[in-house]
Amino acid sequence: MKVIIPVSPINSLKTRLSEFLSSEERKNLLLNMLRDIKKALEGLDVVVVSRDDEILDFAKYELKAEIVKEKYKGLNNAIKQAFDEIDDEEVIIIPADIPLIKKKHIEDILKLSKDYDLIIASSRGGGTNLLYLKSKNLIELRYEGFSFLKHLEEAEKRNLRYYIYDSFLISVDINTPEDLGEIFIHGDNTYTKNYLKGLGIEVEPKHSSAGRFVVKRR
Amino acid sequence: MKVIIPVSPINSLKTRLSEFLSSEERKNLLLNMLRDIKKALEGLDVVVVSRDDEILDFAKYELKAEIVKEKYKGLNNAIKQAFDEIDDEEVIIIPADIPLIKKKHIEDILKLSKDYDLIIASSRGGGTNLLYLKSKNLIELRYEGFSFLKHLEEAEKRNLRYYIYDSFLISVDINTPEDLGEIFIHGDNTYTKNYLKGLGIEVEPKHSSAGRFVVKRR
Repeated sequence: MKVIIPVSPINSLKTRLSEFLSSEERKNLLLNMLRDIKKALEGLDVVVVSRDDEILDFAKYELKAEIVKEKYKGLNNAIKQAFDEIDDEEVIIIPADIPLIKKKHIEDILKLSKDYDLIIASSRGGGTNLLYLKSKNLIELRYEGFSFLKHLEEAEKRNLRYYIYDSFLISVDINTPEDLGEIFIHGDNTYTKNYLKGLGIEVEPKHSSAGRFVVKRR
Repeated sequence: MKVIIPVSPINSLKTRLSEFLSSEERKNLLLNMLRDIKKALEGLDVVVVSRDDEILDFAKYELKAEIVKEKYKGLNNAIKQAFDEIDDEEVIIIPADIPLIKKKHIEDILKLSKDYDLIIASSRGGGTNLLYLKSKNLIELRYEGFSFLKHLEEAEKRNLRYYIYDSFLISVDINTPEDLGEIFIHGDNTYTKNYLKGLGIEVEPKHSSAGRFVVKRR
């Protein structure tokens, strides 16, 4: 089994955070999120796919991951390229921006994998934040948009035994300043929270249509 | 054991949804969410606390719940009043706006309750969307604000055996049009989704700092 983590290039990274974090800080945020994810994946083989050499170097030397230099456009193609370059059939695909994922989740997935062909956990907004496939070519990958529903549709169409893994912590992907709030609530002892705290970021509760957090920077 | 559901008055209800749903529709949304929650609680005794007679009538006659007419201001006081009016020690407290909760979650909580004094599941934004207490006066209730952290603090202070129950579906509370999006993704076979569909509401994916969904009404 291999865990595949596709990573967007640093310069296109998290532009929705750009009012809040400089480009250098967004890069460091990404690297810290990858450190947290790697910790959850302890003992498993990790493959990082990216077109960005700085990320690939980090993945290789610090995360001790296999690396795949992305050749084609689009997330689905990047993952398929990684599929082609590994021998393993069994894969888990996770994004680079879910730093609240824990070892416990992966242990659950490995247990469930004995009984299911496909295991999926959603992001907020109908995306896919974890996808386990007993065999990498079982379905057509359909990331982007409401991929959670599309992947379930694939599973149904092919009569796969599938399981929906319900996790709030996996659902939290970091795209907006608002999202950083969840790191402050749930991210104790993560690299990501420690990094953000070091930048002087603080979070307060709010309840309005504009969101659930006030995220500020000292 | 009793499950306590505090419910705000209908006229103060979900004002953040008011651009999108009329007052009558927001009321019906609430009643449908309560129907979904009641389904998840099948077989358990439910107590609805509210100052609103229409809600209390619905709770009594349709949900077959015990009812408590709220006398004091504030969510914590409403729950404490319910504590006073029941004989049971063991309680689960859940809000009225988490229609994606499932029977499976409650079964998990009941199993875990053998080993823990306090079980908590967070909302998005650091609130508390499920709280199990082995004995109702074990902690000081501290709803409002980042109550998830405050309740954990209470548990630590008193050396309770506590468990953080990680569920995306429980984390989804319905406060904004954006939140309705999650119902469309995850709410198949719920009263709530069926009701919203009947109103001509539709949801599309979006990825911007303004949110993850485009929620429209035909």
